[in-house]
Amino acid sequence: MASIRKITLERQVPKIIGMHVYGNMSGIDEKLLTDMDFLLLKVKESAKAGNLHIIEILTKKFKLHGAEAGVSIIALLEESHISLHTWPEGNYATLDVYSCGAASNPDAAFKYIVAALKPTSVKISRASRSNC
Amino acid sequence: MASIRKITLERQVPKIIGMHVYGNMSGIDEKLLTDMDFLLLKVKESAKAGNLHIIEILTKKFKLHGAEAGVSIIALLEESHISLHTWPEGNYATLDVYSCGAASNPDAAFKYIVAALKPTSVKISRASRSNC
Repeated sequence: MASIRKITLERQVPKIIGMHVYGNMSGIDEKLLTDMDFLLLKVKESAKAGNLHIIEILTKKFKLHGAEAGVSIIALLEESHISLHTWPEGNYATLDVYSCGAASNPDAAFKYIVAALKPTSVKISRASRSNC
Repeated sequence: MASIRKITLERQVPKIIGMHVYGNMSGIDEKLLTDMDFLLLKVKESAKAGNLHIIEILTKKFKLHGAEAGVSIIALLEESHISLHTWPEGNYATLDVYSCGAASNPDAAFKYIVAALKPTSVKISRASRSNC
């Protein structure tokens, strides 16, 4: 009787690589934090700095008690997203650069925007968004 | 000679309250992860569950080797943003619910989407996005 070899075929789960760099920035010149054109340019340039590719961008200018206030900018990327939210009344902004794939550099994009905003303090965190 | 009282007026920095709940979810039925209508509905419903207010939404359907692949959904909120990125080839998705202000409940929104996607495992993290 011929021997029977049992072969187990396991389905390989593809590795999804994701890195999320995010931070809270204080002590920023409030004039910068309402300047949509400036902030939008910096988000676009940061994507280039991080080898990230913008598909589309959403923006919103907020008002506080009828006056010009913070802005939100969210860039949908081929590699995930960048978000920037600002609160000029607190000289404060938060930034997220989340990228998937091994070809991009979210740290470089993050640092690019920090260099543009010149906060007096930055609290940076990094989180894996990978499935492995 | 009259005494001189020195009064120091310190500028109060407004408190910006922000909470970011994010997670990586594995073991999701891949059919759900390409179903833009279903995912978009769940993002909208999750915002209601968390008392979050959508301003505008960006969506993108990706292709992998010519076939239907993952999607990205980013909702710009009055309170910051929700993002959902999916990778059906890995039965994998990542979710961010970031809200500012004390009136919203990002955990409720997060849990709403988890309940809809039914992952076999979820790694949840919470990060303060406050300036205090």
